[in-house]
Amino acid sequence: MIDRVEDPTEEYPLINRPSVSGLTVAIVGIGQMGGSFAGALRGKCQSVIGIDKSSEVIEIALKHKLIDYGTTDLIHGVYEANVVILATPVRVILSLLDQLALYLANDCLLMDLGSTKSQIVIKMAALPNHLQPIGGHPMCGREISGVLAADPEIYKNAVFILTPLSNTSKRTISLSLSLIDAIGSHPLILDPERHDRLVAAISHLPYLLACALVDTVQEVASVDSLVWDVASSGFRDTSRLAASDITMMLDIVLTNRKAIIEALRRFDASFNELVKLIVAGDESELRKLLTEVYHRRSNLFNNNNS
Amino acid sequence: MIDRVEDPTEEYPLINRPSVSGLTVAIVGIGQMGGSFAGALRGKCQSVIGIDKSSEVIEIALKHKLIDYGTTDLIHGVYEANVVILATPVRVILSLLDQLALYLANDCLLMDLGSTKSQIVIKMAALPNHLQPIGGHPMCGREISGVLAADPEIYKNAVFILTPLSNTSKRTISLSLSLIDAIGSHPLILDPERHDRLVAAISHLPYLLACALVDTVQEVASVDSLVWDVASSGFRDTSRLAASDITMMLDIVLTNRKAIIEALRRFDASFNELVKLIVAGDESELRKLLTEVYHRRSNLFNNNNS
Repeated sequence: MIDRVEDPTEEYPLINRPSVSGLTVAIVGIGQMGGSFAGALRGKCQSVIGIDKSSEVIEIALKHKLIDYGTTDLIHGVYEANVVILATPVRVILSLLDQLALYLANDCLLMDLGSTKSQIVIKMAALPNHLQPIGGHPMCGREISGVLAADPEIYKNAVFILTPLSNTSKRTISLSLSLIDAIGSHPLILDPERHDRLVAAISHLPYLLACALVDTVQEVASVDSLVWDVASSGFRDTSRLAASDITMMLDIVLTNRKAIIEALRRFDASFNELVKLIVAGDESELRKLLTEVYHRRSNLFNNNNS
Repeated sequence: MIDRVEDPTEEYPLINRPSVSGLTVAIVGIGQMGGSFAGALRGKCQSVIGIDKSSEVIEIALKHKLIDYGTTDLIHGVYEANVVILATPVRVILSLLDQLALYLANDCLLMDLGSTKSQIVIKMAALPNHLQPIGGHPMCGREISGVLAADPEIYKNAVFILTPLSNTSKRTISLSLSLIDAIGSHPLILDPERHDRLVAAISHLPYLLACALVDTVQEVASVDSLVWDVASSGFRDTSRLAASDITMMLDIVLTNRKAIIEALRRFDASFNELVKLIVAGDESELRKLLTEVYHRRSNLFNNNNS
């Protein structure tokens, strides 16, 4: 079994972390995650600049007081920032890393919020030396997307994973921890491959199961459309992730294929075991399996989150 | 495609339905569903009698004003009732149908709330002629069980399926509709086999997927236990049903095996198609599939329920 990751507060004590109050933070992509990040940080640092290709999105973000300034001009928006946060779908992040390097200030902390990390960190490692890149992935968010879904509260008490590069400086990690602290999240430092394996199982697999479930019921509905009328809260919750943003999820699936295929294969084994027991009508083994998962799931979340 | 079921208000107009106000209703099994049913009906009929094998449960139900009277004595509890509702796990319902027949009043309406209907309705059809049996299945409830989870509000606006027998009288169906109306649910009349096929896909399959998902992550955790620490709301909701009451779910699985195996096979086909596209990295077909399920799921529930 792989050891628990060390609590970063041991190597990076809170008291020694740099303050965020003097920072100019530019956030690229003002959707649910970027808009929420902006709103959670606004007022705590010198200024929060929102950058989005849509001027309508910028207007909404200003109106909702998520950002101090906004622009649709990427280069103009980032060039004086001490911190740049990339909050777009993963493949847009990969393309932004190609475009941005020349325009960022010396020692600029460049973090992304993408849900897969290996490919992003590989690309970050090829950036010029005057930049301070680090991977980030906050474990929060709802399936709805866009600036209207932004809510600074989603970061409160969420786990925020950092995936530093081999040469990321201690100061960059420390400043990243200050930012995470400022938005109310709890940091966890992981290497990118381990991150990608874990989220493939706990996050990407549930999404794909929700999709396959909706597809299955769609098939049933082609024979008897009444099936949708008897859908209740059980189906609603199990299928919820199927309504996640398609572009975001497609980027995740295509940039984390190896780990996702491994998770799908593991699921297939568990699923087939369950099918086997049901086909055999093996009550005692079935009870054993259902009891194990019952206890595991019941102990995971507190009652408010059940 | 199978036609929509007729709205029962056409054949059974609201204005012609019998009143529930004079009824003595006995409810056997004061868990989440029975306790909620009792609480939703209490005050609207002459008396609601709660029957449970646990005297502690009866005390709680009395204290929470879910029932007017309570007893642990099954025969004593049902013998003067005009309506008896069986609200226990399915295999206990099957056994109660064997035990109760002799002790029920003439013309007693005997309804169950079990989640599978074919086996129950077959057993109901063998009951003596002086009884008025009908199958029932309210499409509501949460994964928590027991009298402390009872909440009369869960029936509000829920679909309540009735599965009459071939010889169930119009008066019995009409009185059942009055009861459903009294607790705030919407009736839907189905034959038992069709009911079992539909709920296998929309309700039992999601439960089994949640179980296989938790089992999969358990496997991953045996290699890297940190996986539980990065669980977020996506995993929480997709796996929620795995914390359903084991006895209830085991009875459902074992009394609806044929329809469940059919639903599992359909899911396996959808799942394998998805795996195939991911392994092939077929972006265009993947986007097509994810877009279809996205639209299907997004249109199913209103925003409050998403």
